[in-house]
Amino acid sequence: MYDLIIIGAGPAGLTAGLYAARFGMHTLILEKNFVGGQIILSPTIENFPGFPGGIKTGVLIEKMQKQVEDLGVKISLSEVLKIESGRDARKVFTQDETLEARTVLIASGAYPKKLGVAGEDKFIGRGVSYCGTCDGPLFKDKEICVVGGGDRALEEAIFLTTYAKKVNLIHRREEFRGSDILKKEVGRNKKINIILESVVEEILGEKKVSGVKIKNIKDNRTTQVGCEGVFIFAGIHPNTDFLKSLLQLDKDGFIITDQEMNSSVKGIFAAGDCRHSPLWQVVTACSDGAIAAHSAHRFIAPYR
Amino acid sequence: MYDLIIIGAGPAGLTAGLYAARFGMHTLILEKNFVGGQIILSPTIENFPGFPGGIKTGVLIEKMQKQVEDLGVKISLSEVLKIESGRDARKVFTQDETLEARTVLIASGAYPKKLGVAGEDKFIGRGVSYCGTCDGPLFKDKEICVVGGGDRALEEAIFLTTYAKKVNLIHRREEFRGSDILKKEVGRNKKINIILESVVEEILGEKKVSGVKIKNIKDNRTTQVGCEGVFIFAGIHPNTDFLKSLLQLDKDGFIITDQEMNSSVKGIFAAGDCRHSPLWQVVTACSDGAIAAHSAHRFIAPYR
Repeated sequence: MYDLIIIGAGPAGLTAGLYAARFGMHTLILEKNFVGGQIILSPTIENFPGFPGGIKTGVLIEKMQKQVEDLGVKISLSEVLKIESGRDARKVFTQDETLEARTVLIASGAYPKKLGVAGEDKFIGRGVSYCGTCDGPLFKDKEICVVGGGDRALEEAIFLTTYAKKVNLIHRREEFRGSDILKKEVGRNKKINIILESVVEEILGEKKVSGVKIKNIKDNRTTQVGCEGVFIFAGIHPNTDFLKSLLQLDKDGFIITDQEMNSSVKGIFAAGDCRHSPLWQVVTACSDGAIAAHSAHRFIAPYR
Repeated sequence: MYDLIIIGAGPAGLTAGLYAARFGMHTLILEKNFVGGQIILSPTIENFPGFPGGIKTGVLIEKMQKQVEDLGVKISLSEVLKIESGRDARKVFTQDETLEARTVLIASGAYPKKLGVAGEDKFIGRGVSYCGTCDGPLFKDKEICVVGGGDRALEEAIFLTTYAKKVNLIHRREEFRGSDILKKEVGRNKKINIILESVVEEILGEKKVSGVKIKNIKDNRTTQVGCEGVFIFAGIHPNTDFLKSLLQLDKDGFIITDQEMNSSVKGIFAAGDCRHSPLWQVVTACSDGAIAAHSAHRFIAPYR
């Protein structure tokens, strides 16, 4: 019987593991894909406090992983299929086994949403990408499109100019939603061509991407932009499908908690990108994880 | 007119400044004493994610300060005496001047109440601590004293048995004030030695703590207890006296906010140790600051 099973090894899960280990809790972290989670999709992070000038995301995650593993917490690669909650314990079902824990922390993160247009699925890995860090280098000296208008889209558009000769930044509103500092940086970057009030209708190509068909939403005219890559940053979807109806979720599927990270089910906590929150950042995920571990530690007091 | 004035240059205020600057907000940080705040009382921090093996607190704070100053945010040494809130702006009164801002973030921190005994100040960071979560691991297999009788003292005493070989729990009354569940747990923990109706008269040592002199308040006899650490939990007091009756506070003076860091007054936010919160840590303060800056940025949107 574990004191705490943490589902997800991103910043929230890793920080929860760090705190739980320091609280003396018998803790296991389960991770479905790879340590780090969604943040690995960004090449560098400039707004995590303590790293002036920024830090490569992979390096930050390695440091967090070392910090929790140094305390003896094991990170196991395993997908959770289901959770059941009893009076004194929770059962966690993976492909291979059924584990028991007094408390469970869901820190399962989120993943990027698709546009849902023709050609998108067909060309994933052949020009369509949701990750500049992963695929940017494939488009050296080529023309690409970036779709979206939030911080992530702006950051990625700027980053992708490192490789691409031209970046068409396509957004459906008349103004970007992202922060001013990024808007300014986008505005003065000569490699970025801004296309506002426009939506992608189709991703074109034969064997790989050759362009996109876009529609201006004011006059409904469609045009084509030739490009070899399309990077899509259209929002995120929480990894909470496996919870089914176990917990209270918001309309977008994010887990609702109180300020102590309690979900609607006793003994189950949530932290990070999968949680309904006013802001999803690495530092907020870490904080969620610390608070959740603290709450879990208090929860198990009667069983010690 | 500033977009945001931040009161306090600890981790909460510095992270809020970092985020606000990136949001393009005209921001000023005011600090009464010294950059860093309460955390400077701990020599090193081991539970801030991203620093395996820990980091010297002063170094972490320098990094955070550089990160926000690199973005052009000014930190001004000045004590705030009063805040007044109008419809469209807030006035911040310091000794020297009256400043105006659309929004104000109170990140003024808190301080641990001292016992006020000989040796206490001398040995801060050399055996005397006000935070078990921060400094507990430094006392692995050592004998320590914990002073206090409330929930926090009992929780910390239990927590510290994870590391210490023996914890002397010293309280001046004949019974602890803490909750029953914690009293029971303390009672059955074999590593905890309870010393009631006793007060610490002096903290002893040469270069670092070697023991405490305690007096039994019934018979006035003094004895010495040998120990390498003294953890003092005589209460934490938030730096909110200057707010007088402006905001809703809890019974201990901590500012009550919602999850977006809104205080009870529009345009005034709170973050970090001065905020009513389930856990006060550097990482939670940073997260509070990021969220508060984000909320302040949304708040000023109609004025841009």
